[in-house]
Amino acid sequence: MQQIIDFKNSASILSYYSVVGKSEKEGPIGECFDEYCEDDMFGKSSWEQSESEMQRLALKGALEKAELSATDIELLIAGDLLNQCVGSTYGLLDFNIPYVGIYGACSTCALGLALGGALLSGGVCDKCASVTSSHFCSSERQFRFPLEYGGQRTPTSQWTVTGSGAFVLGREGDIKIKSAVFGKSIDMGVKDINNMGAAMAPAATDTILRFFQNSSHRVEDFDMIVTGDLGYEGSEILKDLLLSNDLDIRKNHVDCGLVIYDRFSQDKHAGGSGCGCSASVLAGNILKNMQSGAIKDILFIGTGALMNPMTLYQGQSIPSIAHLVHIGR
Amino acid sequence: MQQIIDFKNSASILSYYSVVGKSEKEGPIGECFDEYCEDDMFGKSSWEQSESEMQRLALKGALEKAELSATDIELLIAGDLLNQCVGSTYGLLDFNIPYVGIYGACSTCALGLALGGALLSGGVCDKCASVTSSHFCSSERQFRFPLEYGGQRTPTSQWTVTGSGAFVLGREGDIKIKSAVFGKSIDMGVKDINNMGAAMAPAATDTILRFFQNSSHRVEDFDMIVTGDLGYEGSEILKDLLLSNDLDIRKNHVDCGLVIYDRFSQDKHAGGSGCGCSASVLAGNILKNMQSGAIKDILFIGTGALMNPMTLYQGQSIPSIAHLVHIGR
Repeated sequence: MQQIIDFKNSASILSYYSVVGKSEKEGPIGECFDEYCEDDMFGKSSWEQSESEMQRLALKGALEKAELSATDIELLIAGDLLNQCVGSTYGLLDFNIPYVGIYGACSTCALGLALGGALLSGGVCDKCASVTSSHFCSSERQFRFPLEYGGQRTPTSQWTVTGSGAFVLGREGDIKIKSAVFGKSIDMGVKDINNMGAAMAPAATDTILRFFQNSSHRVEDFDMIVTGDLGYEGSEILKDLLLSNDLDIRKNHVDCGLVIYDRFSQDKHAGGSGCGCSASVLAGNILKNMQSGAIKDILFIGTGALMNPMTLYQGQSIPSIAHLVHIGR
Repeated sequence: MQQIIDFKNSASILSYYSVVGKSEKEGPIGECFDEYCEDDMFGKSSWEQSESEMQRLALKGALEKAELSATDIELLIAGDLLNQCVGSTYGLLDFNIPYVGIYGACSTCALGLALGGALLSGGVCDKCASVTSSHFCSSERQFRFPLEYGGQRTPTSQWTVTGSGAFVLGREGDIKIKSAVFGKSIDMGVKDINNMGAAMAPAATDTILRFFQNSSHRVEDFDMIVTGDLGYEGSEILKDLLLSNDLDIRKNHVDCGLVIYDRFSQDKHAGGSGCGCSASVLAGNILKNMQSGAIKDILFIGTGALMNPMTLYQGQSIPSIAHLVHIGR
């Protein structure tokens, strides 16, 4: 069985665009995002519609950067955290592009890039786009408490990023999606909805190990090994689990949830999370550094927790998943 | 832009398996389903877990029919109607297969077959599987009312099928997935949560028209043009919309939602719906008729409404989608 899917140099990221909210703009890498909104509403009257609007703005921005129109895009691959992925559905309606809905929770950005890369390398399409988002306010009331309730957060809880990232994919381009590893659902029995990092770290471990065990690459080949949103707790667990499997990524590891907010001044507890976390950091920061030549090769591992609140009320634990893409020049 | 994706004879359905509940077993095609459960619980203690169990049983059955084990399958493509697609996540955990979560509402079966076909024809994998499900009780309380409330149903409302269908896909096999058309999200302004057929019919119309406008096929080439779950209301609208575009499918049209229950004796109002409707009818009935030689070529069009209850409370209308696969011997 093929563990790593090689895209044979025929899948590229042609353009990328990030849209974020106020907290993200005020964070340590705030300057790098392409667009933001001071009140997180993006001119809409509900948080869910604001999230959809972020996706619309992100795809519009990515299309403009690539100097393409919606009719050039053959497939739209998108999803988000909202029930029935309505962020994507309503946000991307206007583009009138054939639409593949995906669900990978916070791993959606990596899943979309992996799937897009697979379809491009397989000759199924010549151009496609991948979009995802999350919004702190729509997520909080759907997964945890109404914001007005002012619930106290535990130290291991993460802060859902208000942000969206869109990527236009094609064959020719400097930045290649070189290969992908599709994640397996892994459930190690974690039941704490406020500790997603611990739930997701074993899935990231499995995917990263499968990559290195099935390729000739070494950790040193990569400028960065980027995880989506494990946060402080999950990142430490990941590094420990990998070390116990004789893989040391401590020098190269970067977690998007740890770079998007300032740990001390912004009070986001264990770091950022949400589909928009890894998507906006990749589009806003990492790919720009790759374009400029500052970095050359990365592994990008989106991590997602696949539960919903009801399954936890019913006493089930949290299955997680991590999809990996190797991105490089 | 490529409207129809040709799978070049390299994508086949190797096996298929259907699991249903009591009402479906008692319906006009009840005899054809592979497995059923008298009390719809499948030995589990919640409806959501029962739905997951149906997916597990369906994939297990399909693997056994194909004489394959889980390790032979490179990718699992699955999704369902439950928030965050937890039917699939929990149901398919045990198989330990790399997992691509998809969301297409009731179009999920067709979306999974289209995506699986694309990945096979593109050489991305050699074997994959596609699974989906729905459960009347888990859907009803999530999308409409608690069952205990005993809410009166409107004449245009459909009955979510308790059922699951699993398909093992590979290269060599008698039954081919010949081509696919990925659907576009279409929103014609329908806001009635109890009239999904009307919301989905325009999406099916768009997809079917794109197929016939971009291929040399005529309606007569197909033994059946099968829609997923438009029900009585939506099926009539579809046929009218196509007729007004000079396409007459009245002789060939079959809707899975209309064949699974008896209109008069079973009191399911406008017919069956849900991801499990088209999946179980395709796996339980249609593919068996194709295997036996009774039919040779069909178009299978999964139809899905992509809203959630909150978007309707917020005054938005119902965007819908229809994915098409051409299946034949």
